[in-house]
Amino acid sequence: MHSEFELIARYFTPAPPGVDAGVALGVGDDCTLLAPAPGCRLAVSVDTSVAGVHYPADAPAEAVGHRALAVSLSDLAAMGARARWCLMALTLASADDDWLEGFSRGFRALCDATGTALVGGDVTRGATTIGVTVMGEVAPEAALTRSGGRPGDLVAVTGALGGGAGGLALWQRGERDPSHPLLVRYLRPQPRLAAGEALVGLASAAIDVSDGLLADLGHVLERSGVGATLDPEALPLAEGLVAALGEAGARRAALSGGDDYELLVSLPAEHLAEARARLARIGLPLTVIGRLEAEPGLRGVEARGEGGWQHFSAEPAAGEGGGA
Amino acid sequence: MHSEFELIARYFTPAPPGVDAGVALGVGDDCTLLAPAPGCRLAVSVDTSVAGVHYPADAPAEAVGHRALAVSLSDLAAMGARARWCLMALTLASADDDWLEGFSRGFRALCDATGTALVGGDVTRGATTIGVTVMGEVAPEAALTRSGGRPGDLVAVTGALGGGAGGLALWQRGERDPSHPLLVRYLRPQPRLAAGEALVGLASAAIDVSDGLLADLGHVLERSGVGATLDPEALPLAEGLVAALGEAGARRAALSGGDDYELLVSLPAEHLAEARARLARIGLPLTVIGRLEAEPGLRGVEARGEGGWQHFSAEPAAGEGGGA
Repeated sequence: MHSEFELIARYFTPAPPGVDAGVALGVGDDCTLLAPAPGCRLAVSVDTSVAGVHYPADAPAEAVGHRALAVSLSDLAAMGARARWCLMALTLASADDDWLEGFSRGFRALCDATGTALVGGDVTRGATTIGVTVMGEVAPEAALTRSGGRPGDLVAVTGALGGGAGGLALWQRGERDPSHPLLVRYLRPQPRLAAGEALVGLASAAIDVSDGLLADLGHVLERSGVGATLDPEALPLAEGLVAALGEAGARRAALSGGDDYELLVSLPAEHLAEARARLARIGLPLTVIGRLEAEPGLRGVEARGEGGWQHFSAEPAAGEGGGA
Repeated sequence: MHSEFELIARYFTPAPPGVDAGVALGVGDDCTLLAPAPGCRLAVSVDTSVAGVHYPADAPAEAVGHRALAVSLSDLAAMGARARWCLMALTLASADDDWLEGFSRGFRALCDATGTALVGGDVTRGATTIGVTVMGEVAPEAALTRSGGRPGDLVAVTGALGGGAGGLALWQRGERDPSHPLLVRYLRPQPRLAAGEALVGLASAAIDVSDGLLADLGHVLERSGVGATLDPEALPLAEGLVAALGEAGARRAALSGGDDYELLVSLPAEHLAEARARLARIGLPLTVIGRLEAEPGLRGVEARGEGGWQHFSAEPAAGEGGGA
């Protein structure tokens, strides 16, 4: 066991001050001082990951660290914001060196890969709970929101769907090969930051697929005041998903599974070619799966009510009950 | 039981966008968009409050809400920053309407009192854990840090000490009168934001007293590269503290108790009169309790090693063990 201060110093010492990182005063004081870029909007979001609720309690520590940051960064991606900084509130049942080493390695690797500086944190004792606040920057008026969808716009999604739910199902069946494509999708989701930035000026609305495609599309429809028709046959399915869950199960996972962290966007048809060209440069497909319409409601799928995962009203995603 | 979305909407709907609040896009999207004041540094900090570790699990919900925000705002106060925004990551074992109503009332009242806009949050299921990220603004070069103390500077503290530990001791003995001055100090600490801003330009270093006077002074000494002599007789004791804990217990609480959230500052002697005049305008005394010296180490108190509360290495403050 270590003191709180030693723990923080050993694993989570934030980046030193630097002009590049926009950090005017780093760790070791009451606050960190940041220097936001002049004229930008600051995009902020916080997400919590609870062991046994949001991820399996026995998931590899490195994946837990990666994932806790990835789900927060995904919100920046959905705004088209550039990731800049993060803070971590880490509550742990015990201070296990091996776990902390793996956790911080996964967290830091994604920081490095996305240009996100860890600029603050708090380590406390309690049931394992990881809160990550992310901050990014986006030019005024450039941010992608949920409310900009217009009738006639295409509905499209980056990458592939269903991998989150498929990976979880495999994990629960005992699959532990870390290179299985569905486990990679579930345990190490890639926040689509580059895609979000690339779609600024092209997409009319955007959201990340965290609660499930139907639930997240529902948020866009509600905020944009429109309806949509989906083509379920067009859904891009994650690699290995049909083999793991069968045809029907794969489609259910893609529609309602959640934890995919792809970007769901609407865009005028005339922007599609340019959007695809930009995403092709970062190796990501953009698949049209429907169209927005003036008439409210969602058509083309049967079980609208299946929705996505909601805490407090359904079985936990990781199937292990609430932490308390 | 309610859905996560209903819960958020009912109790924690952030402030609507507004120029005054610096909120360009409010709740209901993937991120909130903020408009920081041009040229300012952004001061950020995160603190976690765990039921049974940082506060008694049976503390009044309204106090828990107040306290969770207060301990984070106290970090802004210690930098001399103006509070602007906060985000809340709320993990709850169950969704109890009465508790949530009280919690949000306490949280919101302190938001209003300090001009802090709640701009984002996340509600999840798990052992009750409250993470609050705060953001404030301070002019470049104006921030109070831990590292600016110089030999010869006076050491001074706002308000009174020992109330945090005294209030906890009373609570553990069964005292429940919410108007008892020590319970007020423990359950509803007041972040010294106005004092912090008033001391900009006068104090050479500052920290808030959260871990205990000795531990927090130790941070200032280490970061400033100086030592100090304290006068324990000069410590301003919280109202009712001697009656509750006796003379020796009161002094121990003031030296090592923590949870006071007063500001501990160093300042050149020639700034003392002006500092006191500014704090008098907000009804707060400033008491000189020692002096910084070039020689490292702390003199004038016996038990330097008593230190403050550190998680993972001592008994929990609320005496109820780790949450897991």
